[in-house]
Amino acid sequence: MKTETSIQGLSASLAPARSARKTIGFVPTMGNLHEGHMQLVREARRICDVVVVSVFVNPIQFGPNEDFASYPRTLEQDSHLLAENGCDILFSPSVEQMYGKQPRLTNIAVNLLTEGLCGAQRPGHFDGVAVVVTKLFNMVQPTYAFFGQKDYQQLAVIQQLVQDLNIPVEVRGVPIVRAEDGLALSSRNGYLTPEQRQIAPKIYASLLAAQQQLKQSESLTIVLEKLRKSLTDAGFVIDYAEARSPQLQTVTAFDQDIVLFVAAKLGNTRLIDNLQIRYTD
Amino acid sequence: MKTETSIQGLSASLAPARSARKTIGFVPTMGNLHEGHMQLVREARRICDVVVVSVFVNPIQFGPNEDFASYPRTLEQDSHLLAENGCDILFSPSVEQMYGKQPRLTNIAVNLLTEGLCGAQRPGHFDGVAVVVTKLFNMVQPTYAFFGQKDYQQLAVIQQLVQDLNIPVEVRGVPIVRAEDGLALSSRNGYLTPEQRQIAPKIYASLLAAQQQLKQSESLTIVLEKLRKSLTDAGFVIDYAEARSPQLQTVTAFDQDIVLFVAAKLGNTRLIDNLQIRYTD
Repeated sequence: MKTETSIQGLSASLAPARSARKTIGFVPTMGNLHEGHMQLVREARRICDVVVVSVFVNPIQFGPNEDFASYPRTLEQDSHLLAENGCDILFSPSVEQMYGKQPRLTNIAVNLLTEGLCGAQRPGHFDGVAVVVTKLFNMVQPTYAFFGQKDYQQLAVIQQLVQDLNIPVEVRGVPIVRAEDGLALSSRNGYLTPEQRQIAPKIYASLLAAQQQLKQSESLTIVLEKLRKSLTDAGFVIDYAEARSPQLQTVTAFDQDIVLFVAAKLGNTRLIDNLQIRYTD
Repeated sequence: MKTETSIQGLSASLAPARSARKTIGFVPTMGNLHEGHMQLVREARRICDVVVVSVFVNPIQFGPNEDFASYPRTLEQDSHLLAENGCDILFSPSVEQMYGKQPRLTNIAVNLLTEGLCGAQRPGHFDGVAVVVTKLFNMVQPTYAFFGQKDYQQLAVIQQLVQDLNIPVEVRGVPIVRAEDGLALSSRNGYLTPEQRQIAPKIYASLLAAQQQLKQSESLTIVLEKLRKSLTDAGFVIDYAEARSPQLQTVTAFDQDIVLFVAAKLGNTRLIDNLQIRYTD
């Protein structure tokens, strides 16, 4: 595995693959990699000739009161994991390499999809994601790009961005990877105290309970109320617990496929999860 | 010369050039082509293996009270001119081909550079330009793209966009082409009555006079006043007559390289022009 820290180095490393018209698979990450990321890397490895993974903690997608400074940076460990899982090129640029010395004047907004859910609590977050992903796509010029479904709204935003701007990449969503107790894997899980880590799986347990209630024809409104109560009772402070259509439109009843979304805090740690629920008469 | 009207057809036409790693030169236009456009095409022909020209009247860069519906569409004539001047592929998509049936949710804004000058009178105009140029760049994936310096602010916006988003294209600005009497060539010149066409060259004459006054050490403020007066006296209604730095920052004195910008109307026809003036002690 090669490691590149400059855009020029990345281009040079990719030149032979491009000349040979090989397929390039790309997994953008913020590092502190876990099995969820490795699932993306293995999926890229399975489909593509060349696998590129970026590790970049993107400052412009963090709000002023968020955890940019303290976000875990574990490049050495990430590098070992990536090499073991079939990554060919690790791209880990500095902030200056990514954003240059001149001020950035260009912004990208993906409207509607970024309203509500994480967009409500994190103003500007998805603009920052859209900008950095567009930049990385232009640097790597991948054939396929892989994103986890845990960040469902992010995946929807990127799919819309790619469609609206005709970005020549095929975006693939990869199912959530969970710990044995059901907790969705996330770099932020590392912030949890042992006690909080015991409580955290209740998000997924509550989502499964909600699914069962819906399948037993309880009304969506009541199911969401119960979902919120079970989370609050477990000690979470809820950001949101909502149902949307797979395209993120608001829904008022379980009369179509839906996705249940939760964002909730344990102490200072904000966890998110979601569950896709099929509607079948 | 091939003509393609679909994104798929364009990709198919470009595939052999891409496989052979040929350089692709791209000239995006709104059609109604004149010698100014042909200069861009010839410059592309001179530098590149393959020349692509798009003809697309982009609805989203026109304001509600602007001339989208009446903008001259002369595809047959454009096609002949392009074939004669060395274009290899003419891309002339429909609005539906460019924007699809689903609503577009993504917007691109290039801040600061789009404040003032044409940005003031045409809100949303440069967002529309940024979106369509990004889409076209993603479709054509050119090595070089060519833009006229008559639309100086547009060129600056696109250069910033390309830099900020790391779009893998080299943008080249091409000097303004003028009629013998000095009028900058523009598709909108066709709207002028014979009488207005007689008056129109006074924009360039006034810019040259302003340049001479500046070289003779008259103050910028007074020179701009005289410029405005000469245009008004000639029958123009001025949108703006301003000096900026080459990077479009406001300037108050001629103590560096500057660009003089004019936008002015004759009847309903809005004309723009500019003149770059070197500062040498």
